Amino acid sequence: MRIVDMNWMQVEEYLRRDDRVVLPIGSVEQHGYLSLGVDAILAGRVSVEAAEPLGVPVYPVQPYGVTPHFREFPGTLGLRVETYAHVVRDLLDGLHGMGFRRVLLVNGHGGNQSAASVAAEWVADHPDARVRFHNWWNAPRTIAKVASFDKAYSHASWMENFPWTRLEGIVMPEGEKPMADMLRLNLLNPREVRAYLVDGNYGGRYQRPDEEMLAIWAEGVAETRAAIEGPWE
Amino acid sequence: MRIVDMNWMQVEEYLRRDDRVVLPIGSVEQHGYLSLGVDAILAGRVSVEAAEPLGVPVYPVQPYGVTPHFREFPGTLGLRVETYAHVVRDLLDGLHGMGFRRVLLVNGHGGNQSAASVAAEWVADHPDARVRFHNWWNAPRTIAKVASFDKAYSHASWMENFPWTRLEGIVMPEGEKPMADMLRLNLLNPREVRAYLVDGNYGGRYQRPDEEMLAIWAEGVAETRAAIEGPWE
Amino acid sequence: MRIVDMNWMQVEEYLRRDDRVVLPIGSVEQHGYLSLGVDAILAGRVSVEAAEPLGVPVYPVQPYGVTPHFREFPGTLGLRVETYAHVVRDLLDGLHGMGFRRVLLVNGHGGNQSAASVAAEWVADHPDARVRFHNWWNAPRTIAKVASFDKAYSHASWMENFPWTRLEGIVMPEGEKPMADMLRLNLLNPREVRAYLVDGNYGGRYQRPDEEMLAIWAEGVAETRAAIEGPWE
Amino acid sequence: MRIVDMNWMQVEEYLRRDDRVVLPIGSVEQHGYLSLGVDAILAGRVSVEAAEPLGVPVYPVQPYGVTPHFREFPGTLGLRVETYAHVVRDLLDGLHGMGFRRVLLVNGHGGNQSAASVAAEWVADHPDARVRFHNWWNAPRTIAKVASFDKAYSHASWMENFPWTRLEGIVMPEGEKPMADMLRLNLLNPREVRAYLVDGNYGGRYQRPDEEMLAIWAEGVAETRAAIEGPWE
Amino acid sequence: MRIVDMNWMQVEEYLRRDDRVVLPIGSVEQHGYLSLGVDAILAGRVSVEAAEPLGVPVYPVQPYGVTPHFREFPGTLGLRVETYAHVVRDLLDGLHGMGFRRVLLVNGHGGNQSAASVAAEWVADHPDARVRFHNWWNAPRTIAKVASFDKAYSHASWMENFPWTRLEGIVMPEGEKPMADMLRLNLLNPREVRAYLVDGNYGGRYQRPDEEMLAIWAEGVAETRAAIEGPWE
Amino acid sequence: MRIVDMNWMQVEEYLRRDDRVVLPIGSVEQHGYLSLGVDAILAGRVSVEAAEPLGVPVYPVQPYGVTPHFREFPGTLGLRVETYAHVVRDLLDGLHGMGFRRVLLVNGHGGNQSAASVAAEWVADHPDARVRFHNWWNAPRTIAKVASFDKAYSHASWMENFPWTRLEGIVMPEGEKPMADMLRLNLLNPREVRAYLVDGNYGGRYQRPDEEMLAIWAEGVAETRAAIEGPWE
Repeated sequence: MRIVDMNWMQVEEYLRRDDRVVLPIGSVEQHGYLSLGVDAILAGRVSVEAAEPLGVPVYPVQPYGVTPHFREFPGTLGLRVETYAHVVRDLLDGLHGMGFRRVLLVNGHGGNQSAASVAAEWVADHPDARVRFHNWWNAPRTIAKVASFDKAYSHASWMENFPWTRLEGIVMPEGEKPMADMLRLNLLNPREVRAYLVDGNYGGRYQRPDEEMLAIWAEGVAETRAAIEGPWE
Repeated sequence: MRIVDMNWMQVEEYLRRDDRVVLPIGSVEQHGYLSLGVDAILAGRVSVEAAEPLGVPVYPVQPYGVTPHFREFPGTLGLRVETYAHVVRDLLDGLHGMGFRRVLLVNGHGGNQSAASVAAEWVADHPDARVRFHNWWNAPRTIAKVASFDKAYSHASWMENFPWTRLEGIVMPEGEKPMADMLRLNLLNPREVRAYLVDGNYGGRYQRPDEEMLAIWAEGVAETRAAIEGPWE
Repeated sequence: MRIVDMNWMQVEEYLRRDDRVVLPIGSVEQHGYLSLGVDAILAGRVSVEAAEPLGVPVYPVQPYGVTPHFREFPGTLGLRVETYAHVVRDLLDGLHGMGFRRVLLVNGHGGNQSAASVAAEWVADHPDARVRFHNWWNAPRTIAKVASFDKAYSHASWMENFPWTRLEGIVMPEGEKPMADMLRLNLLNPREVRAYLVDGNYGGRYQRPDEEMLAIWAEGVAETRAAIEGPWE
Repeated sequence: MRIVDMNWMQVEEYLRRDDRVVLPIGSVEQHGYLSLGVDAILAGRVSVEAAEPLGVPVYPVQPYGVTPHFREFPGTLGLRVETYAHVVRDLLDGLHGMGFRRVLLVNGHGGNQSAASVAAEWVADHPDARVRFHNWWNAPRTIAKVASFDKAYSHASWMENFPWTRLEGIVMPEGEKPMADMLRLNLLNPREVRAYLVDGNYGGRYQRPDEEMLAIWAEGVAETRAAIEGPWE
Repeated sequence: MRIVDMNWMQVEEYLRRDDRVVLPIGSVEQHGYLSLGVDAILAGRVSVEAAEPLGVPVYPVQPYGVTPHFREFPGTLGLRVETYAHVVRDLLDGLHGMGFRRVLLVNGHGGNQSAASVAAEWVADHPDARVRFHNWWNAPRTIAKVASFDKAYSHASWMENFPWTRLEGIVMPEGEKPMADMLRLNLLNPREVRAYLVDGNYGGRYQRPDEEMLAIWAEGVAETRAAIEGPWE
Repeated sequence: MRIVDMNWMQVEEYLRRDDRVVLPIGSVEQHGYLSLGVDAILAGRVSVEAAEPLGVPVYPVQPYGVTPHFREFPGTLGLRVETYAHVVRDLLDGLHGMGFRRVLLVNGHGGNQSAASVAAEWVADHPDARVRFHNWWNAPRTIAKVASFDKAYSHASWMENFPWTRLEGIVMPEGEKPMADMLRLNLLNPREVRAYLVDGNYGGRYQRPDEEMLAIWAEGVAETRAAIEGPWE
């Protein structure tokens, strides 16, 4: 259940019977021809759909993450690493303060990985609580489903092209882009990253049939739901 | 236009002809019987509607703000003052880095006021840019429209009860709550604030006719649009 | 009583019978023809005079606040927003540590407003204490007294021209300066602020008769004293 | 000349012919029977008297420094080490921004020593500026003058008992307190420090004749003046 | 070449002909029966051996990293995530300031991963420099060599048991420990982590023949050397 | 005993019978013709030799300290003052967390002095613990031994030229360098510091007989050992 569909009395009531909560974290950054909001949209949506039948509340996605790499692609907007650490810590503090004890961080963006370090440290400081850091898109079952359709997948490729991340009126290129050399990409500065990637896709096709995408989505939702269900010990 | 409805090529194209942008900032906190997301919902929505005919892009609302006062109402979730300062600064840095020069911060929450200080300092450090801090809900024309219907308005009262902030299945109390004593309220700690406010409404009726609410909304949208249009000097 | 007129044994003795304390906060910044220290001088002095008959101790004014706007008027000297948040938090921590439980922050500068956010957060973290944030110069009774003499008042105008803020040998301009457009002023960067304001006065006369000033002062002292007296619940 | 006795036009005029400035930094902390403000009072006053004949402006003393050691003596109020570093950095930034290039930091408190590290780092970042860190009370000539009267001097002893730091109605103890063991004192926590020091004096007499104190003061003023005069290379 | 075997004149001379440098980062934390310094020892040593024939200087290993997870195993000592971010940033700033432009961060500890985020951000801010983040122990060739001997390897298992990380007089247990469940381990707080791991080994044998270890080491050195050699574009 | 020669079980066992620990802190910076690591090498080594017969564990030296002054001598690498404060605080927190209650900080670098302020503040926050800040090289007995051989000693002079800090193949200059003017040196920016010092030695001979150096070393070790032994009250 979305927190924005609840008032405080309902959260209080929920906390009398359960202490699980979902906090999605995303990013606003270039995704080639797709929406700048891909990571925020997907992390938020997968959380809501996963939590729905369980009645576990889902907080609004923290839309801004860490994305210095894509700074030269206009529209990309993020936070500095230290700022992000403080944001994650404050949000965990707040959730703990109101009584949540099992937090699923549903992450939609690889660059947010430092949040996992913060969460580990926070748990060490709050031994009565648990935080599970869940990269929904590359959790084992979901990424296996992706690979089952096409082994050439990557950032901003078909793998992120869902009906809810593609844009009206934008036509996807045909064909398959050669895979970027990740070792090289990791060395480049933002200007070079842009020059190297051209359109932002790291490699692979730009679109695949929607039945495949919906199957991937179903797996992502199911796997995220399993993470909410536990076990938590 | 929502940034999530754009890709980076479209932002780049926009920046060739305009340098205005809207960044809404909200809060997730108790609003009595209404949604915990009132401030985030309204700041985001008023921004999108205001910017729409102008074609100015609107970033996703930063949902988490500063709200220590309501900490004892479950569901309320915010950031510490210093964290928030860093968030606002990083976002302004990022907008500036990609070429925006006129930023409208559309604020939906009184507790975020320190963002105005950060913005003033940021402008002093970036003299080629402008930031207008716009408290949409108490801008002169909008608050006058509110007062024209009923002088007893406040946090979590009818004034924030729009079709898009009320919750399904939640029935509003009848009658008018006496106004809280703000001087006293400002002195209380979170536990006392909760005990004093009981349901969270600061005073006034809980609901008023939708035609009044839509008139207020229209004024809020129009006034926010005027803020985007300028003048910016 | 001024803390600088006390030794630690006297503070200890005081804390056995009372837990109120006054901490004035000011700014060092352009005030047109008046002293650069106006805000620090007035916040400190009004605190001392208000507290005197009550025997409540008054700490030295924290002279440096947040004032990026006036950076291009030489002499102006302040702290960054985050630094200021830490200063306010540390001072409140220290007062609490020694046993004070009711703190009156007497603020003399609009730009310090973020201190009120910090204080609210600090109180939420220290539920056994109270902090009242008191903008002495625009508290209801004091600002009404100002307006009773002349409705055209502003930063660096006659309203701040007391015998103890004017400078020897400096002759005030005659006449009344037209009011600055605040919406426009808030958009300007420091260089533009200076160009727009010329001498620093925001509008209104530069001086008014001392009997009026002393009447305003008496009201400011009385209203600040009332804030010390309480009620504190 | 005190900055509070100047307006911005006068600072601007001064900066056309000179770029030296004095910033005193003090502390508010126990000084035995003497004023809690000893370090702030003395740093401020020695600066003003030293600078007076040279026409160099003196900023208001930053009254709050670093003083964790005396936390258990009520009245003591300070900042954390990191906060203080930010305060010193911000003030140096501000002075540099308005055109000062030679800054004398007149320090009145041993616990503020980390400000010297910050100043050294700041100078490394601002190679067009100079900062001289001047511990006025133990500069070579001044401390020699102190020792010429009585070798048993220390914190809160006669050495800090000037007509402007002693308190009305407070009678000083007779006799000479044995010197504290500094190695031991440095190991103690605040509670133990208080138990060990009892009245706060580190050792030595509590008062000496005023002609001696005035001679010390004259030396302190002269040596601080010499530090303002230079050489600065 | 180790920086501690150089003086500044030699570094200056080196910088005239090359701009590569190696900075190893480690951790001090439980490694079962092995040295608490395993990660620092290995990162430092592999760097020195790799760089030796290339003449590229190697800075002393930063021994303290991020390791909240092992807090309940005595001896473990680390830094907070934000502190670590500042350490990495400062060191990169310093290397850049003296003229290095290609930095190999040789990391010996998984918990330091947030340093990679900091490095990416730093590169975005310093587009004239490159930083390669190299987890030496799980770089492709090295981890393949490990797996070629025994697929059951993990933290504190035989895989980290080199002649220079084992301790005199400590006898390793016989047999193979069952692999820990990583998903579960990631959920536990430090007390639970200790209870679950018992001796600290995550699973696998405690020791294997030294010829295997030396073969792994040779691969690790060779692969790290290749990372220093480049390509760097 | 070096922590890197222990595993966690051994630290746990030690903590059952003692709560003393040694943490050396150094610097990597120019030392004229000597190793860039002089301060780290000496602080680490003196700690290990001093603690050895007492069986007190010695942590790895924190090699990077605060050294902005020498920034223009290539090879010098340090941390910012605030970063360093956080490092020292985190390490003290960690030592306290695992049960150490008496910490000897063995400092090898004058520029790290702000660590003493942090330690004092930390002790005030942790009244059950003690921290002794020990500048090993200018502790009374050691510096007296230095002066007994030659009164002209300084940074990077013979006084720091031990068999374990001098470099293979580097020939020391003959003769005695005139002493630098410290007051002047403290005013200079990094470029000027380098121009003024030329080779980095602050004054005095470059080398003296090894029997003298070994006598100094023996005194340093003995005096550091005494600091470990106590008394700690």
